[in-house]
Amino acid sequence: MTKTAAIIGGGVIGGGWLARFLLNGWDVNVFDPDPQAERKIGEVLANARRSLPMLYDVALPDEGTLTFCDTLEEAVKNAAWIQESVPERLDIKHKVFAQIETFAPQGAVFGSSTSGFKPSELQQGMKRPEALMVTHPFNPVYLLPLIEVVPSPKTGTDTVAKAKEILTSLGMYPLHVRKEIDAHIADRFLEAVWREGLWLIKDGIATTQEIDDAIRYGFGLRWAQMGLFETFRIAGGEAGMKHFIEQFGPCLKWPWTKLMDVPELTPELTDMIADQSDAQSGALSIRELERLRDDNLVAMMRALKGQDSAAGALINTHQMQITPKKAPDFSKPIQSADRIIPVDWTDYNGHMNESRYAEAFSEAVDFVMGSVGADAAYIASGFSYFTVELSCQYQAEAHAGQKITIESQIMLGEGKKLKVHHRMYAKDGTLLATGDHFMLHVSLKTRRTCNPEPDVLKQLEAAAKAQANLPDPREKRG
Amino acid sequence: MTKTAAIIGGGVIGGGWLARFLLNGWDVNVFDPDPQAERKIGEVLANARRSLPMLYDVALPDEGTLTFCDTLEEAVKNAAWIQESVPERLDIKHKVFAQIETFAPQGAVFGSSTSGFKPSELQQGMKRPEALMVTHPFNPVYLLPLIEVVPSPKTGTDTVAKAKEILTSLGMYPLHVRKEIDAHIADRFLEAVWREGLWLIKDGIATTQEIDDAIRYGFGLRWAQMGLFETFRIAGGEAGMKHFIEQFGPCLKWPWTKLMDVPELTPELTDMIADQSDAQSGALSIRELERLRDDNLVAMMRALKGQDSAAGALINTHQMQITPKKAPDFSKPIQSADRIIPVDWTDYNGHMNESRYAEAFSEAVDFVMGSVGADAAYIASGFSYFTVELSCQYQAEAHAGQKITIESQIMLGEGKKLKVHHRMYAKDGTLLATGDHFMLHVSLKTRRTCNPEPDVLKQLEAAAKAQANLPDPREKRG
Repeated sequence: MTKTAAIIGGGVIGGGWLARFLLNGWDVNVFDPDPQAERKIGEVLANARRSLPMLYDVALPDEGTLTFCDTLEEAVKNAAWIQESVPERLDIKHKVFAQIETFAPQGAVFGSSTSGFKPSELQQGMKRPEALMVTHPFNPVYLLPLIEVVPSPKTGTDTVAKAKEILTSLGMYPLHVRKEIDAHIADRFLEAVWREGLWLIKDGIATTQEIDDAIRYGFGLRWAQMGLFETFRIAGGEAGMKHFIEQFGPCLKWPWTKLMDVPELTPELTDMIADQSDAQSGALSIRELERLRDDNLVAMMRALKGQDSAAGALINTHQMQITPKKAPDFSKPIQSADRIIPVDWTDYNGHMNESRYAEAFSEAVDFVMGSVGADAAYIASGFSYFTVELSCQYQAEAHAGQKITIESQIMLGEGKKLKVHHRMYAKDGTLLATGDHFMLHVSLKTRRTCNPEPDVLKQLEAAAKAQANLPDPREKRG
Repeated sequence: MTKTAAIIGGGVIGGGWLARFLLNGWDVNVFDPDPQAERKIGEVLANARRSLPMLYDVALPDEGTLTFCDTLEEAVKNAAWIQESVPERLDIKHKVFAQIETFAPQGAVFGSSTSGFKPSELQQGMKRPEALMVTHPFNPVYLLPLIEVVPSPKTGTDTVAKAKEILTSLGMYPLHVRKEIDAHIADRFLEAVWREGLWLIKDGIATTQEIDDAIRYGFGLRWAQMGLFETFRIAGGEAGMKHFIEQFGPCLKWPWTKLMDVPELTPELTDMIADQSDAQSGALSIRELERLRDDNLVAMMRALKGQDSAAGALINTHQMQITPKKAPDFSKPIQSADRIIPVDWTDYNGHMNESRYAEAFSEAVDFVMGSVGADAAYIASGFSYFTVELSCQYQAEAHAGQKITIESQIMLGEGKKLKVHHRMYAKDGTLLATGDHFMLHVSLKTRRTCNPEPDVLKQLEAAAKAQANLPDPREKRG
């Protein structure tokens, strides 16, 4: 399969798709007749380039090539994935898909970003309906993993399988919606909340700010990691989910369900909402709000990554897929890190906190351990290395979004002892810091030191011998 | 004001309130006739003791005294805050408040945890309605900051002001609901989502697992940090909120709003939901799910704390309030840290990651800097210390939830140089690690070294002189 995607329509959503593909190593062709398209896409891409790589502790693949095309034909003719993100009007979407199916290669996936239309509606009149499904993303598309994959009965099952595989390889989570339905799944909830919010504002109960506070200081935090039903299951306690439903189900009949009508969006109500939103957020531009949102999302998603839970577990799985696997070459210093500094590594001085240099060296030494066979499976078998001493010498400041690499050299590797020297570099070759690890091999059962298992010891000693022939890195300038 | 709270009804909600008060230094009296109350409260309290202190980088106040009372009178008679969390039946609540107002001292706040009733309904027939308001919390009450404060016209405005002040001092966020309404604000949204979820399950569109994934991989992450309207504002882009409403408002009239009826909770539907929930989460007990949830919440809330945003900004404000303010005494080692190890500081070995020892020492050195006047205001004025070298010597493992203290000693403080030695201890006095900082004073404008401002230099040199008389800590055993 050629790794080429075609993006038809380059607004906030199309631009987000574009960034996902491009930053995961795909070539991307864009077609959007809007004369502002290149500028708009550039802004989304700048946000994505800044934040997406921060989710991972390894480098993303090299970026693909981005091409702005003058015609839809040119964009789609060699694409394996064609993503439509044009305005939400069925007649426009029909016209676009008529062109797509004329020019797209056989076997290409046609994905639609529609939030409302069913795939069978989009497929009306198509000659190649089997290629089309809804692949509905969530803004910011370059960070949020959810994609609702909605086929119709006419969509090819092999096409759906292929689409899910590609989405997973982009770090996304394809949620297969088994029956097509207006607005799919997630937007039904958004719609319900939006409707309630409009009533609360119209009736003068709450402002946009108060509603947002009610969400982000309460159930929003719960939903970011567990969703609705698992949270309710916990609320039910030992008595179980059935008990919970029997207890709280009747509340649905209580008076507060009277507000299920839709409030009329009069000019007055529209102005009221816009004014409240200005009062709440008007001090920041949309770009600043986007950046605030992205920083928060990156920090929270990295927090969940640390717990290997919810969206964080998806990132860990994807990270394993994108981590380069190559046999270690101990005839030169070990390239033990290649990554971006995430926002949660910086401090009040505006630069990478001193303890995060230690964290980067800590991950680097994990890599060195893995390269001699002391990897995750070895640790699971009951052995590891514990650090006795770690020292960091700071040479230069580093900032969020900056690329760093680390070269590590085994200075001593015999018996239970392991000494590693690290040198951290900026992209331009500036030496940012050096570090020294002194570690001892331990049994995780006894928590005491012991020799490594024979295979690891053999690999370690061979590696240490090869590295001993290298110049002493501590005598390097830079 | 005496810092005594009375908890009337000790289920999951009452127990959560109890933990908030107790862990913030209040004495707590509980009244709950359930013979299982002490066990149930013990379980909630164990969860709270484990997770709430992890939100902060300083110790919480010393716990208050917990007393189980045989009568409601005994529980409320000397309480400044009385929190009712009995079952959601108006007749029961009326009986409880009749007793509360008979025995409670003048000036006490009566808070109700009701999720559905309006305060005016609760006040019916009361002699002291001015003392009562709804103070509606969110589970887990010991972690989530949101409290909906809902007075009726009969509630005293001074009582509302006092209640908000107390809630803030507990690290909570009082959201003042200005007009009473059934279900207040947040539960209206929960209710709307719950209703949509039931339809999706009933119609076979999605399972509980699929619905939860649709939430936690998508809009749940957005809402944990910004809520609904600020997220929509961003979606509207440069065109603004008014444009967004005009564009998306009409969607409310689209076919998918047809599902606004309430599905009937037949035994079949109830079983279907319970079965799906078992398949999704049944491998974990409720206690295990609670712990998973709490760990995720702590990690995410700490991530937001690092960004000083959303719920994290609330924690930072509260942390400033609970940080002890006392004049530094340089005639002995500086007590530079007193805190709990949070879950996000541990690694795959199951213990505190080596880099987090460095983080604790980094915060300890911030405290030392602050004690000689190089505090946040000084840094804001354009000066700081940058670290040249940091070394950590690891002596013993430490785990999440464990209390640690750090003693720091200024080894050198003259001109632009600052050297500090740290010793980290477990609660039982075990030496966990030592650390050494070598720092240089810098101008944040030029990013170059320079002498501290005269006042800081004077304080530093005096402190260094006093500390020089102490024994060399590096010669201590333990």
